[in-house]
Amino acid sequence: MTMEGFRVLDEKSLREYIKATPSLASKLGNEVDNFKIKEVGDGNLNFVYIVISPSGSIVIKQAIPYVRCIGESWPMTKERSYFEATALKRQHEPPHIILRKGLIAGVEYPLLAEHMAEFMANTLFYTSLLYLTTTQHKSAVAEFCGNVELCRLTEQVVFSDPYKISEFNRWTSPYLDTDAEAVRNDKILKLEVAELKSKFCEKTQALIHGDLHTGSVMVTHESTQVIDPEFAFYGPMGFDIGAFIGNLFLAYFSQDGHVEQGNDRKTYKTWIMDTIADTWNLFYKKFTSLWDIHKEGPGEAYLHEIYNDLELRELVKQKYMMDLFHDSLGFAAAKMIRRIVGVAHVEDFESISDLVKRSDCERRALEFAKNLMKKRRNFNTIADVIAVAK
Amino acid sequence: MTMEGFRVLDEKSLREYIKATPSLASKLGNEVDNFKIKEVGDGNLNFVYIVISPSGSIVIKQAIPYVRCIGESWPMTKERSYFEATALKRQHEPPHIILRKGLIAGVEYPLLAEHMAEFMANTLFYTSLLYLTTTQHKSAVAEFCGNVELCRLTEQVVFSDPYKISEFNRWTSPYLDTDAEAVRNDKILKLEVAELKSKFCEKTQALIHGDLHTGSVMVTHESTQVIDPEFAFYGPMGFDIGAFIGNLFLAYFSQDGHVEQGNDRKTYKTWIMDTIADTWNLFYKKFTSLWDIHKEGPGEAYLHEIYNDLELRELVKQKYMMDLFHDSLGFAAAKMIRRIVGVAHVEDFESISDLVKRSDCERRALEFAKNLMKKRRNFNTIADVIAVAK
Repeated sequence: MTMEGFRVLDEKSLREYIKATPSLASKLGNEVDNFKIKEVGDGNLNFVYIVISPSGSIVIKQAIPYVRCIGESWPMTKERSYFEATALKRQHEPPHIILRKGLIAGVEYPLLAEHMAEFMANTLFYTSLLYLTTTQHKSAVAEFCGNVELCRLTEQVVFSDPYKISEFNRWTSPYLDTDAEAVRNDKILKLEVAELKSKFCEKTQALIHGDLHTGSVMVTHESTQVIDPEFAFYGPMGFDIGAFIGNLFLAYFSQDGHVEQGNDRKTYKTWIMDTIADTWNLFYKKFTSLWDIHKEGPGEAYLHEIYNDLELRELVKQKYMMDLFHDSLGFAAAKMIRRIVGVAHVEDFESISDLVKRSDCERRALEFAKNLMKKRRNFNTIADVIAVAK
Repeated sequence: MTMEGFRVLDEKSLREYIKATPSLASKLGNEVDNFKIKEVGDGNLNFVYIVISPSGSIVIKQAIPYVRCIGESWPMTKERSYFEATALKRQHEPPHIILRKGLIAGVEYPLLAEHMAEFMANTLFYTSLLYLTTTQHKSAVAEFCGNVELCRLTEQVVFSDPYKISEFNRWTSPYLDTDAEAVRNDKILKLEVAELKSKFCEKTQALIHGDLHTGSVMVTHESTQVIDPEFAFYGPMGFDIGAFIGNLFLAYFSQDGHVEQGNDRKTYKTWIMDTIADTWNLFYKKFTSLWDIHKEGPGEAYLHEIYNDLELRELVKQKYMMDLFHDSLGFAAAKMIRRIVGVAHVEDFESISDLVKRSDCERRALEFAKNLMKKRRNFNTIADVIAVAK
């Protein structure tokens, strides 16, 4: 397959490409006939190759012009890699193991909540009108409007497909047949998901990662790195926070399927819940602290001359953060639902081979998510949410 | 004053410009030494010339690179005329008398509400995600991000300056000195106006006119034309609806200042209130009817496959329209407040020469607007709002 000089790489053509590209060959010590290539991508969209020579190694990621997990019948702009690269430059660079795999294996990451709270507070605060002028903001909004194809993919698979009959949807059948049907017939749920979809399409609150699930986070015991920001655009902050928290809830509900002899995962479930609580609470603290630090900064949403009163500043922060909390819970719910009855599932559940057990876990997650989406405005603290999940 | 080939026109240079421009000269029958020029602009930003020859006439509007009513100390991009022209092409073209002058004179326009409801329903519906695909929407959002300078002017004069000490603010002093101070010290009001400002900056709901007050509407008994869309950009629909309704409320509160012997304006005040009610109610009807007509159309906010149930469609419409109603009331209040204690005032009040009488009218309008902004979410119908105003 070629298109205007573009071709989908495989091991053979990648080898030729590296040989012909001095900047890559030099990173491998120019040992052009002495390197190994392995395709390791396990995402839904792209191919990822690790190339190792005795003198060095590189990782090559290719965005192909269709959705990898579906095939050429679902075309997808390859220019997404431009937005990924651009967003990466504004955030930081990759490395470790995919968090989702760690969560399935039952590994605790003591700094995860702290790191993710830090990442989200920084990336969301500094790209919002709490820090930017409206001139900078509108210019950035316009640039990322170009990433419309990836936004459209999210609109379809998160906010639309799960709520209608779609050839792409699947679920643990026949066990969840009536559950999937109930989602499609739930009027209040559809009313709520419409509001969330509108916010996703219309609310240019910050430069969000756009796909911040536990498969987009790489971890070690000490370090946390966020990868894959190819979905980045100006959207609602709650979509990132919700994606991360929602996927931690999925990990929580999947734990009963990973119980082994001698490990009932009870302690681990508690750790996941603590991590969810810490993530939100630390995010709240870090985000509002950045706001305090930059209260006289360039941000134009809350001009210091107007909001310079201590009591008023507290009021404003509380309102802003409560709205953001409710957005986050709504998006968390949407991201959970789509992973159970939509096209792309999560390994947390998929790796439970006993389908009765798997569907029991999924059903509890689904019921929790539906309730969360409908009742999100009634929650005042993350502890209240966790109490319901338990 | 020249800048890269640009110069501010006056009668003399305009005459030369027309002579040298065949497309304009031909409209005047090429009678290049036999036409009259009159500057008639009364807005805050631009100059407007009417040019008449025995064979024809033209209107020339020039966007100068600063705010006309302030002077060169407040620069303003002259490219605003590009956005005005672009928005005009997508809406329609001008002609009549400025509505605000008609309202001051006490003239009833029986079709005004119908026409404005029609204009707003059409322009807002067809540029929203109720009709557009997200691809079309994002492309249009990006284009109008370029009109950032005019958005920034609104942000400053509507959402910021009235709530802080600003060299530009003025009010009917000394009568309203304590009222203006009360606005600057009202914590709840400032909390609410922050939310409205965020919506103005971040909610890309539709291509809005951006300055839809009663000075941007030209009327005859039978016809209504909207002019001056140079502030057009993708923003919250409620900003247009609020601008229009808010300025009708200003007209209402100014009526007591225009009472003459033999005309207590009581009937006229009732007509204004009826017009406010009709505007919203007809807008509601026309807008939701467009939605019904195009329910299987290209719009991607509410896909027909998901929202094809009659009861669900009613629920969705009610929620959408109630949110829009509350947005509209909030923006109406913001637009009222800024006309009383901000930089640009309205002739409705300015033409009341008795300052005690004027400030009494303004104070009642201001108190109503403050209450409206704070309590807007408690109103369910426009009739409830009108009852409070009376």
